[in-house]
This record gives sequence, structure tokens and C-alpha cells, in this order.
Amino acid sequence: MNHRCDYRVIYGDTDQMGVMYYANHLRLFERGRTELMASRNFDYSAVEAEGIYLPVVEANVKYRAPARFNDIVTIETVVADTTRITLRFGYRLLRDDVVLAEGITLHAAIDKAGRPTRLPASVAQLL
Amino acid sequence: MNHRCDYRVIYGDTDQMGVMYYANHLRLFERGRTELMASRNFDYSAVEAEGIYLPVVEANVKYRAPARFNDIVTIETVVADTTRITLRFGYRLLRDDVVLAEGITLHAAIDKAGRPTRLPASVAQLL
Amino acid sequence: MNHRCDYRVIYGDTDQMGVMYYANHLRLFERGRTELMASRNFDYSAVEAEGIYLPVVEANVKYRAPARFNDIVTIETVVADTTRITLRFGYRLLRDDVVLAEGITLHAAIDKAGRPTRLPASVAQLL
Amino acid sequence: MNHRCDYRVIYGDTDQMGVMYYANHLRLFERGRTELMASRNFDYSAVEAEGIYLPVVEANVKYRAPARFNDIVTIETVVADTTRITLRFGYRLLRDDVVLAEGITLHAAIDKAGRPTRLPASVAQLL
Repeated sequence: MNHRCDYRVIYGDTDQMGVMYYANHLRLFERGRTELMASRNFDYSAVEAEGIYLPVVEANVKYRAPARFNDIVTIETVVADTTRITLRFGYRLLRDDVVLAEGITLHAAIDKAGRPTRLPASVAQLL
Repeated sequence: MNHRCDYRVIYGDTDQMGVMYYANHLRLFERGRTELMASRNFDYSAVEAEGIYLPVVEANVKYRAPARFNDIVTIETVVADTTRITLRFGYRLLRDDVVLAEGITLHAAIDKAGRPTRLPASVAQLL
Repeated sequence: MNHRCDYRVIYGDTDQMGVMYYANHLRLFERGRTELMASRNFDYSAVEAEGIYLPVVEANVKYRAPARFNDIVTIETVVADTTRITLRFGYRLLRDDVVLAEGITLHAAIDKAGRPTRLPASVAQLL
Repeated sequence: MNHRCDYRVIYGDTDQMGVMYYANHLRLFERGRTELMASRNFDYSAVEAEGIYLPVVEANVKYRAPARFNDIVTIETVVADTTRITLRFGYRLLRDDVVLAEGITLHAAIDKAGRPTRLPASVAQLL
């Protein structure tokens, strides 16, 4: 059930330590879940058009080893858990077999007014 | 008529060459014009609420000298020119008296459908 | 012992949900600890010149309320804990009295070869 | 002689106008030239290891149409021109046949001290 996609690290992802800057791992996590959604025909824009949003309410990253310029990083994404209102993704970033980072994001469904709401039925497609 | 504000370069702005990554200069230019607008009580959000947007249609940057981690960069911004539909800002980034970069952004007023429209009257406050 | 500094959210920090993108909170956390270091005369570049690095090994963010374009966000930073090798910072992002986000970063001292090493003595200045 | 590669726009690339933020086009340009280099076995890290850097000295972008979340943007890159010291890339960003943006970056070869130097011989591989 894991989804995998690849991403080449660009110069703009690195910092002066010569490694991928720590905030960019969250960008790669988002790329992982966006590609997972696309691969499962989950249309996030349609959900937004219905007035349901899935903002991140918590994120956690453990940094195991540096990603460097020009590395091809594999982003592994899994839908880890759902409740009526929340959705949790798990992620691993790998270079070959080396785990560079792992983490999670927790999302809560809200309506336009920012109130908690039920996840859209289409979330079932992600599972 | 120039507006000046300061910005401290963070680690996340640098790349592995040890200098500010070249796309981030456009972020500093935006900071310059946002602070200029705030200082002249120009309410960009109110303009957007009227359905007028001012997207960038052209940007140019000349990179003169590197900005480094922890540098306090002065952003100098000026409204360089306006027509009925377009607005041009000029920028210089400085560290003390050294010019690090200079450039321009050209903005065109559009409506929600993306059609060119007249600049809002409130633009006069910027001049 | 908390350090506070302010940051104005720019357009480039937002995403199409109209709020600050979730990775940018980590950039604000870095700004918080960089300003804290500057205010306590801790010279991180000097530490790097000695061959000691303090990469982030874990980051956690809880998102409480959205930060929006033009908001002045107060970044509150505290050195939460140290061991011989690790340093933990705690952060809160606030708009007036509203907590927008809170989180931590855990840093480990490493040498150029990436091996754990003792924190430099100058870390005491941060406490 | 044009190189083409694809990039999916993520949420983090957009801003509250619902389109790709204007600084991110420069990130896509860098991705274009990095992929072009990789496809022609040009090892930029090896050039850096020799002490030669190719920083951007000028960048220009013309924004023709918005790129949106989830768009697959084609990045078209060409080595437009070289002198003994400088290298110019041209870029177009497309969605299907629609040109979203076009621009150039001009790079100058410098040594570690920041002095202009000759382009490395390996640049010929890019042509």
C-alpha cells in the first residue's frame, strides 16, 4: 500500500552545510502525498471546491542522514490511519536503501469557517 | 521616495555555495514592496477583496555580490513607474554600502478572469 | 529566558489555502533561534569554522491557527534542554495573544565526518 | 538541442493567489539546467571540487500565464550562448502547448576567491 516516487535534490534545496535544508523535507512529504493522491485518482481540488480543507495540524520529522545536491531521493508515502475527522500519512525518504528521514503529518478536515468536519467520502480511495 | 527595511539572512536562505540562493532575492524584493505598502497604508488585501490582482509579469535581477548567512541586508524599494495598467518597482539589496543585487518587478492589474484592468485608485498612495 | 522577535508574513510564505504553508513554520523556528543566538553573541559561524555542526535531528510542529499574509508573527524561542551532545529549542508563534503554532527542534553536535561530538563550550552563552 | 523534463506543482509552490509564486519559477529553471547537466553527464560537483563555481549573475523571467497546483509543467532548457567566462541558459515553462513563462539565467565562472576565471573545459559537454 506504500506509494513511491522519486525527486532529484536541486541546489535550491540545500543550505550552506551542503545538505538539504530541514524545512524542505516537509515539501518532499507533501510531494509524496500529492503523488499518492494523483496515483489513486483522488481529486484534492474537487474536495476544496466542496469547501472541505485538509490542513496539517501536526508534523514530525526525524532526520537520519543528509540528502545532498543531485541525490535522487525516493519518497515513500503511506496512509497510516484515519478517523472520522483526521487523516495521518507516514513518510520515509530514502537514497537507495539508506533512510534519510522519516516522519508523519496529521491532517484534520475543516470547513470554510475552520470548523472540524467529516472527511469527504472520497478519502476511501486513498486507502 | 525610497523605502528601506532590513532582513537577516537565515540558514534556509543559503545554498551549498554558502551564499543566498538566487531565487530568494525575489522573496526579498517582495518583502521590500510589502513593507513599502504597509508603510504607506496601502491595503493590498482590500484591493484583492475588490477583485483586482497585481501579479508580476516580469522580473529581473542582477547579482553583484553574495549575501551570506547572518548578514543584515537592507532592502531598498522604489515605485519606479506606473501606467494605467502597470506598476514597476525597483530594488537594491545592500550590506552596508555594498550593493549585493538590484532588479525590477513589473506588475499588471488584472481582474478575477485574468483580463487587464485599470490600477486601483489607491495605488496613488504608493507614489 | 525566552527570546522574542517579529516577522511579517509575505505572499511567498502563503499557499493557495491563503495561509502560511506548513514548511515555513520551520523557517520561522530557525529565524527564532538565529535571532536568539545573535542576541546572546553566540557566533554559530565560528562554531562551524571549528568543524562542529549542529544539524537538526528531529523537528515537531503543532499547528493551532493559521498565519496569514501581512500578519506580524511573534517568534518566541527558548533553549529547552541540553545534554553533552544535544540541544533542544522550543518555539511558539503568536499573533497578539493567539498561539498559531508551537514546536521543538532537537540538534546534535557532529564533527566534519558526521560523528557525534561534544557541544562547544560556547553553547553555555545560550543558556 | 533543447532538454525537456516534467515537474508537478505542489501546494508549497503556490501562493494565496492560487498560482505558483513568482520566485519558484527560478527554482524550476534551476531544475531544468540540473536535469540538462545530468542528461549530458556534466558533473557540476566535480567542477566545484576543482574550485570553479558558476553563480548566476543575472536572471530574467517573463510570466505569461499562471501555473497551478497539480499542473505538470514541462521545463524546456537550452544552453543559449557561451563566452570564455560566461554561460547563458534559456528556459520555457509549458503546460501542454501553453507557454507559462520564459526566461534566461547568465552564469559567470569564478574561482574560490570570487575572481572571474575561464569556464571549465567540460562545459563543452553541455553544448
